[in-house]
Amino acid sequence: MRDAYIIGAGQTPFGAMPEESYRSLFTAAYEEAADSVPDGFDDADVDEAVVGSLGVGGRQLGLSGPAATEHAGLHGIPSSRVENACAASGYAVRQAVQAVKSGMADVALGGGVELMTDMSSDVTKYWLGVSGETEWERLTGTTFSGVYAQMASAYMDEYEATPEHLSMVAVKNHENGAKNPKAHLGFECSLEDAVDAPVVADPLNLYHCCPTSDGAAAVLVASEDVVSEYTDDPIRVAGVGAASERVGLFQRDTYTAISSSETAAESAYDQADIEPAELDFAEVHDCFAIAELLAYEDLGFCDRGEAPQLLEEGRTELGGDLPVNASGGLKSKGHPIGATGAGQIAEAFKQLSGKAGDRQVEDANVGLTHNVGGSGGGAVVHILEREVAR
Amino acid sequence: MRDAYIIGAGQTPFGAMPEESYRSLFTAAYEEAADSVPDGFDDADVDEAVVGSLGVGGRQLGLSGPAATEHAGLHGIPSSRVENACAASGYAVRQAVQAVKSGMADVALGGGVELMTDMSSDVTKYWLGVSGETEWERLTGTTFSGVYAQMASAYMDEYEATPEHLSMVAVKNHENGAKNPKAHLGFECSLEDAVDAPVVADPLNLYHCCPTSDGAAAVLVASEDVVSEYTDDPIRVAGVGAASERVGLFQRDTYTAISSSETAAESAYDQADIEPAELDFAEVHDCFAIAELLAYEDLGFCDRGEAPQLLEEGRTELGGDLPVNASGGLKSKGHPIGATGAGQIAEAFKQLSGKAGDRQVEDANVGLTHNVGGSGGGAVVHILEREVAR
Repeated sequence: MRDAYIIGAGQTPFGAMPEESYRSLFTAAYEEAADSVPDGFDDADVDEAVVGSLGVGGRQLGLSGPAATEHAGLHGIPSSRVENACAASGYAVRQAVQAVKSGMADVALGGGVELMTDMSSDVTKYWLGVSGETEWERLTGTTFSGVYAQMASAYMDEYEATPEHLSMVAVKNHENGAKNPKAHLGFECSLEDAVDAPVVADPLNLYHCCPTSDGAAAVLVASEDVVSEYTDDPIRVAGVGAASERVGLFQRDTYTAISSSETAAESAYDQADIEPAELDFAEVHDCFAIAELLAYEDLGFCDRGEAPQLLEEGRTELGGDLPVNASGGLKSKGHPIGATGAGQIAEAFKQLSGKAGDRQVEDANVGLTHNVGGSGGGAVVHILEREVAR
Repeated sequence: MRDAYIIGAGQTPFGAMPEESYRSLFTAAYEEAADSVPDGFDDADVDEAVVGSLGVGGRQLGLSGPAATEHAGLHGIPSSRVENACAASGYAVRQAVQAVKSGMADVALGGGVELMTDMSSDVTKYWLGVSGETEWERLTGTTFSGVYAQMASAYMDEYEATPEHLSMVAVKNHENGAKNPKAHLGFECSLEDAVDAPVVADPLNLYHCCPTSDGAAAVLVASEDVVSEYTDDPIRVAGVGAASERVGLFQRDTYTAISSSETAAESAYDQADIEPAELDFAEVHDCFAIAELLAYEDLGFCDRGEAPQLLEEGRTELGGDLPVNASGGLKSKGHPIGATGAGQIAEAFKQLSGKAGDRQVEDANVGLTHNVGGSGGGAVVHILEREVAR
């Protein structure tokens, strides 16, 4: 099995851009990725592409992979769309890694795109609804905020956690996002704001929920055989784990852990041969504030029930020992469904390249990204490592 | 790059089964695939799964991969959905092959499913419509039959071909499909029937168009390191090629060739190190009769413009030197979008295993499958070879 490396990554600003198309957004992200390759990059070097997208709105479903890559100037290559709800482009990058490791591609592009703000919120709600368990869960009226609200209630019931802990996630991530020029909600918020916000699905309030965003992200993966043509500072995919879980929450053994995240993380740590304590930073899937608390525990940053303490001690803040969501996370940076997973990897690439500006994590050599589909039906974890220590 | 082998494959009957769900259909196909493994198979051996589906009707979009595989008894493994319009499960099997070649899986499942007959034809038309080029082609009112009708017109204008040649495709494929107990339209038709049928999109008539079907198919792929645990008669994936093309017909250089099919086939032949003349049989993507004529030329079975002659000489009939669509093809066997590509490979597995009953191709040792997305926006070609000659 040969090694795979991230040689470039790009991301559009996340936000409301109803004047754009999935084609224009994906092209912009790809172009930034190509431009970010340290020693230069030629479009003709892309052997294969995988585009993550839920296709919200249904304007182009079939063949949106080839349609997006052709528009980006990549004509003729194998190109397809992968979908795993909100984990679509985390899986797309994983597939690009597989293509490279398989020997079938020397350079593969994994990315994603979603356009969500050019339609009524009822339409968006439908499309997000059919990404949850439809037959047995959605048709009873449960939305994603409702599902995560049940997880939050169960967590607060089981452990020493309060709604204020959920608000602390929002405060931290908005503080980081305010330093990210590409964030959708790039402003700070006070704990008071994040506690007193209107209820969305009790106990979750407005500040406990990520926004609906447009955007795209793209990641270029190269094999060990060609990586030196592109960079002297290779960033290795040290581990990549993925797993599934029952799609309906009601089908599971517990509401206070996401087994797909646990399994994906264990697999990634094993491959990378590192412990969670060795990570310098992480981008985790905080679609709702409770999801970030669960992620701390599912990914092994702390024991079960200890996530609130991690927050209280400020350990996951930008200056802490394990900064989480330096980008602002889904909460502040935004969550264009199909672009989120690749966007996390684009952030990790920036951090590992030392180019993250005001939100740069000091001595960033090993980072983890964690992308979840739905309420945990799918999860994918990447561990990226700089080979040349700074 | 390690070798990949098909160790088992299954397919539900194709047809109108509105009482089924995507879960029940996929499970039935997987169970048949597992049962077909010569030396037995344990569900726990599946390391990874990829499910091809367009998701027609939109009942379960996000996470339909994990939802389908969990129902089939495969809980917890990496599972995702791949979509490339009608080439969805050809790509899904290719991804399973990549997973195995990459070393990330020893056994991977690639399959697909589609449920299309439990909704009004207007809904189906919408979902097929957004699989063609939407922004610039579908919104002007063109349907898939309209797109292929333009290709047929151009072909008859450029070469010595008549509508009767299109009808000869239908006669041949129905004759084969009548021998396939799993065919949707498993009856014979006369040339007269196939010539005098009502027009759908001039010059295409009813017999020049495949039906709208429900169904599922599943293929088990194993690495060279474990294949001997499952079979003494290994069927090697000798070559797998894939390519894309501009999604809109109007964007292309020609209407009488599909460049993605050509490129995918060249790549597969190169890997397998064989010439088209060495094939014992082929399953090609005959969504419309003109597509089978183009396939003969795109796949190198004959030169440009010579496809009608191949038909006239009966060379692609079951007793000919290169039987094409012994299964009945999309025309007679049926075309449940997301299941078609994996269904072709399931047929090839049956043929290479000598278990195709009345439609068995004699001395079947090397076969090709050809799966097209839309009107050629994507294409994928597999070449399968028995290692133990009969």
